[in-house]
Amino acid sequence: MARQEKRLAEGLREVKIITGVNPYAEGSAEVSFGKTKVLVTATVEKELPKWMAPGDGGWITAEYGMLPRSTHTRNKREAAQGKQGGRTLEIQRLVARALRQAVDIKKLEGLTIRIDCDVLCADGGTRTASISGAWVALFQAIESAMKQGLLSSDITLKQVAAVSVGQVKGELLVDLCYEEDSGADFDLNVVCDEDLKIIEIQGTGERATLSLDEVNKLVLLSQPAIRKIMQIQKQAVRPS
Amino acid sequence: MARQEKRLAEGLREVKIITGVNPYAEGSAEVSFGKTKVLVTATVEKELPKWMAPGDGGWITAEYGMLPRSTHTRNKREAAQGKQGGRTLEIQRLVARALRQAVDIKKLEGLTIRIDCDVLCADGGTRTASISGAWVALFQAIESAMKQGLLSSDITLKQVAAVSVGQVKGELLVDLCYEEDSGADFDLNVVCDEDLKIIEIQGTGERATLSLDEVNKLVLLSQPAIRKIMQIQKQAVRPS
Amino acid sequence: MARQEKRLAEGLREVKIITGVNPYAEGSAEVSFGKTKVLVTATVEKELPKWMAPGDGGWITAEYGMLPRSTHTRNKREAAQGKQGGRTLEIQRLVARALRQAVDIKKLEGLTIRIDCDVLCADGGTRTASISGAWVALFQAIESAMKQGLLSSDITLKQVAAVSVGQVKGELLVDLCYEEDSGADFDLNVVCDEDLKIIEIQGTGERATLSLDEVNKLVLLSQPAIRKIMQIQKQAVRPS
Amino acid sequence: MARQEKRLAEGLREVKIITGVNPYAEGSAEVSFGKTKVLVTATVEKELPKWMAPGDGGWITAEYGMLPRSTHTRNKREAAQGKQGGRTLEIQRLVARALRQAVDIKKLEGLTIRIDCDVLCADGGTRTASISGAWVALFQAIESAMKQGLLSSDITLKQVAAVSVGQVKGELLVDLCYEEDSGADFDLNVVCDEDLKIIEIQGTGERATLSLDEVNKLVLLSQPAIRKIMQIQKQAVRPS
Amino acid sequence: MARQEKRLAEGLREVKIITGVNPYAEGSAEVSFGKTKVLVTATVEKELPKWMAPGDGGWITAEYGMLPRSTHTRNKREAAQGKQGGRTLEIQRLVARALRQAVDIKKLEGLTIRIDCDVLCADGGTRTASISGAWVALFQAIESAMKQGLLSSDITLKQVAAVSVGQVKGELLVDLCYEEDSGADFDLNVVCDEDLKIIEIQGTGERATLSLDEVNKLVLLSQPAIRKIMQIQKQAVRPS
Amino acid sequence: MARQEKRLAEGLREVKIITGVNPYAEGSAEVSFGKTKVLVTATVEKELPKWMAPGDGGWITAEYGMLPRSTHTRNKREAAQGKQGGRTLEIQRLVARALRQAVDIKKLEGLTIRIDCDVLCADGGTRTASISGAWVALFQAIESAMKQGLLSSDITLKQVAAVSVGQVKGELLVDLCYEEDSGADFDLNVVCDEDLKIIEIQGTGERATLSLDEVNKLVLLSQPAIRKIMQIQKQAVRPS
Repeated sequence: MARQEKRLAEGLREVKIITGVNPYAEGSAEVSFGKTKVLVTATVEKELPKWMAPGDGGWITAEYGMLPRSTHTRNKREAAQGKQGGRTLEIQRLVARALRQAVDIKKLEGLTIRIDCDVLCADGGTRTASISGAWVALFQAIESAMKQGLLSSDITLKQVAAVSVGQVKGELLVDLCYEEDSGADFDLNVVCDEDLKIIEIQGTGERATLSLDEVNKLVLLSQPAIRKIMQIQKQAVRPS
Repeated sequence: MARQEKRLAEGLREVKIITGVNPYAEGSAEVSFGKTKVLVTATVEKELPKWMAPGDGGWITAEYGMLPRSTHTRNKREAAQGKQGGRTLEIQRLVARALRQAVDIKKLEGLTIRIDCDVLCADGGTRTASISGAWVALFQAIESAMKQGLLSSDITLKQVAAVSVGQVKGELLVDLCYEEDSGADFDLNVVCDEDLKIIEIQGTGERATLSLDEVNKLVLLSQPAIRKIMQIQKQAVRPS
Repeated sequence: MARQEKRLAEGLREVKIITGVNPYAEGSAEVSFGKTKVLVTATVEKELPKWMAPGDGGWITAEYGMLPRSTHTRNKREAAQGKQGGRTLEIQRLVARALRQAVDIKKLEGLTIRIDCDVLCADGGTRTASISGAWVALFQAIESAMKQGLLSSDITLKQVAAVSVGQVKGELLVDLCYEEDSGADFDLNVVCDEDLKIIEIQGTGERATLSLDEVNKLVLLSQPAIRKIMQIQKQAVRPS
Repeated sequence: MARQEKRLAEGLREVKIITGVNPYAEGSAEVSFGKTKVLVTATVEKELPKWMAPGDGGWITAEYGMLPRSTHTRNKREAAQGKQGGRTLEIQRLVARALRQAVDIKKLEGLTIRIDCDVLCADGGTRTASISGAWVALFQAIESAMKQGLLSSDITLKQVAAVSVGQVKGELLVDLCYEEDSGADFDLNVVCDEDLKIIEIQGTGERATLSLDEVNKLVLLSQPAIRKIMQIQKQAVRPS
Repeated sequence: MARQEKRLAEGLREVKIITGVNPYAEGSAEVSFGKTKVLVTATVEKELPKWMAPGDGGWITAEYGMLPRSTHTRNKREAAQGKQGGRTLEIQRLVARALRQAVDIKKLEGLTIRIDCDVLCADGGTRTASISGAWVALFQAIESAMKQGLLSSDITLKQVAAVSVGQVKGELLVDLCYEEDSGADFDLNVVCDEDLKIIEIQGTGERATLSLDEVNKLVLLSQPAIRKIMQIQKQAVRPS
Repeated sequence: MARQEKRLAEGLREVKIITGVNPYAEGSAEVSFGKTKVLVTATVEKELPKWMAPGDGGWITAEYGMLPRSTHTRNKREAAQGKQGGRTLEIQRLVARALRQAVDIKKLEGLTIRIDCDVLCADGGTRTASISGAWVALFQAIESAMKQGLLSSDITLKQVAAVSVGQVKGELLVDLCYEEDSGADFDLNVVCDEDLKIIEIQGTGERATLSLDEVNKLVLLSQPAIRKIMQIQKQAVRPS
């Protein structure tokens, strides 16, 4: 099976992360994996969720949305429907959990950082692109909070990036586009830190079940891709 | 009062309309008035609203949304709130009414065209930017429908563009940015066709009331600006 | 085109404003323009909206609703639908903005005045009837607040009244009934103060666009009508 | 304990039923019990609820609402709250059940009759006033449907009226006003047909429990009151 | 008409109340009337409803729900529908009112007790089973609150139990199962205290209206049944 | 760290699956893992989701809910909140995906099977218990559909079971109870078929990230547990 634009099985699409795309947010990035494009902002708010007591550190939360025509055929606008769908909630919970692993949350000292991931164009992998872009926006937001004196201690961030892998018609592929994803036997999203330790792993058998060995092969395939995304993230936050 | 970037009272901010920004939509445009930036798509659907009978032509509808951090401080996501606010509904009704004047709706023959206006950055004038961009996306969508043979007759579009004008601290200004708008005595949104006839006029006294003469001065001030926007629209749909 | 009951083009329907129709509200009025009938109450509450700080004055807000069978065919009850429609929100925002111009809001000192406009019968012009009646209820509510000692300073109200005008089949008409309104080429709602200065102007081309001259003619036509409504308002609040 | 306006324990407040108050509805009545005032309309629709099969007769349904300032202090508008409260739903279910007993539902032949009860002023007994007024509106609606030829057979209506009774500070009273109702030990709503047979009985011990004997006394007390309401209903539908 | 399992007209189905079915709740009971089975918990919370001032005692509230397949055909899940239906709200209001009569609410001292009634299997009589089981859970919850020192004074509970009675095809029956209930002419729910005084009485003519005499017969029929349920309740809270 | 009741690190809590607990559902099971108890029903409906065309097979869907007091402190009832939370939606999507792998969905021929998982008591592992119990209810439902002649061909089910594993304070544990789960460094839910091939794998680093080797150890630890659950499932559907 030939991939679009002669991509290799283990190849990423072109990944770009552009910062400074929003003039108001404490952090922002437009992240694209091929045609997939997500606008991510990170907002620093000096308040805590109601269930947190002052002195318990801070919190990171995330919201995800797709523009109605980010997809091949138009999706109904969730705001007009009156609720966010299950897929949306599942993704934004995943993004938030992943990013909370990047920070020592105890040191956020009364701050809530809100990540917004809005998909401008969806061609597969929007949740992993969201996470990869969100790390960049979060990095900037924390730098901004430190410059403003909102954080007294130094918060060292672990780096967090994510990619999708999957088995499609028997072949193991990295960074599935929509067409590949919708025909996948098994798809797996992997979120790692800079030591390639696993933060989140979510695999689903859509048309087939995999042995543990096969799952391992998929995870191993994700690792060089994640390393490459991390280089692009670093370049985005510290342009050489 | 000096305007930002030495703009004249009757001057527009830099207006740009970029087409082809969405690979799936039948029409799309990213429209910016200075920092204000709106992503507009037009989607052609082969179905009618429930209240329309087949044979009665077609329909044009619009939805509007702001990304949570399109504003100086973050707004709550309407999808998460479970409903669209009054301002949102008011704007999307305005956009739809304005664009329906561009087309002979009777000739749309069983089609619904859905305009989506999503504000990426809000620095004043998002509703008039939405209308101005939506005309470009609508133009493309109708061209696309004609190419696909969905329309048998030729639908000539009237051109539609809009701009905001207002009285700010006693001075009459064109194309108010957020700072000007939030301090305006009276603001007025004008939507015109290519003969500068009025499609919609909405004026609100925020801190002052105006005589009919003063309202007239504002409308006259809007006309050269609308003419200029129309040139940019034409260039967008028929690049020379 | 003959109007119902031999009304002249510039003629109002019979306008009546009856006060004291609600025994509990600080202000109340039943306002009718021909068959159109709206029950308006003004409620004084000793609290501010959450977003206002004490010391910043007070606030005026409005809500609008139609009884399900106020219309020719029954409309669904919004409470049962689980949300207010776009038209409702648009109108109640208009009513509130218009009435806030009547008062020096800074002097309301910790009070919120809630205007409720409930349409008992809808035969066109419900939003302008609501505004015209709301001014009467507001006047009474402020008198009541002063009597109760809730306001220390004297709040002089500007008078506010509204009427609809429109072009119907080429003819310019004042105070459109439902049948005229639903066939209008262009309709315009004008809200003025007692100097006939414009507080709100909202014009919509439904079937035609108008030149600025034509819009001016409509506004001029509205002025004697508004003056007459203001006489009826005065008589309602200060019966001679 | 003296009742307002020297009313006897077994005395009704002044009951008035005015018909023809809505120019569009197939049936309408403004019913008042003292200060309590409810506007009732009955709408005939040529469609059935989704769960009914054609040929199974017709249906009667009801909705109830209170204008926000129908009460001493303003209640939140249910449409703005996004849902109808439990009390509202309970009352509208009661009204509908009661009125369905008035008609041989099997003979309604594909029609739905929608009763709308909107409380303009609430001084106790709004649910029983709603039922009593609804019967008048329903009567007119069925007459209208027969005149229009929507019903082939003659539908004889049973008469339906309702009143509240209660034990207040040990005393048995008829037709409780708000003040009495809010201090009642036990309140009981009785809905009867013209033979004074019971259609609905709903009694609640708010501060005391009653023996069956005491409940019987209350029901007996309601009977002359219901008879009197029925005379007023008859006069309303067949003015002598 | 023969009843299932040769039950007499005045006979209850087998009534069982099992306590301790929930390891976390302050009180819990699984109550069954034949196949009808309801899981009831009582939760003690150290907070008051917003509308109550400290020092005014405490409050008891109730919620009711049916598992989607507790019924013959599956009902839609209310949480997925986005709202509780009218029947649900009506029942939970009834349960709460009934249980508040069991306690001197003034002595609850800053506590809210929340009753949850979840129907596992519905074969008629779920609301009366809920009330009968809720009394047991409430009893345990108050004992628990006293042991924890949350209540300083001794709160003597009145006993509360309920049963349904009805006229089915002309015959008077106690404790209607679903089949009987859905064919009933008139059904009546009776809630009593231990002196068989009436706390709530709710009767509905579904296919027939009843004279007061006939209603009396039904109430009298309910009394031995309620007495028997009370013995089972006592045995549940104080096993001999 | 000693586990409750001297459980070994690789030990399951007592797992019980009782069938026939709901008299109406086509399949039902009460599944318990220690104190965790879930009531599962499977309902067969002769209709398809709107987005499926006849002839495309059938569908399996799932809903999940927790009784308000299934947890240590009471959770708000989702039906009363007006929406299902993100965790609920995430779990019910997982359950449905897992169970769809059990069946050749193409052969379901116009049927929708609805799985309802209602948690009566939550002590950790409710989602894996739900899946394990749902397979039993699904098995029965398909047997029922075959007996009723709703399925012409023989549908062989793959067996599906699930368990949670995790790293808690450095130790690898199987079947985490609530206390272990809430202190876990990393938790992993594994869903397998009878060949122990992976249907779903979902791992989350709550306090730590794991290497791929460590994740592998967790998966291997889950396998004997899943095998044991499968024996209990088989015994439940085919009691020896």
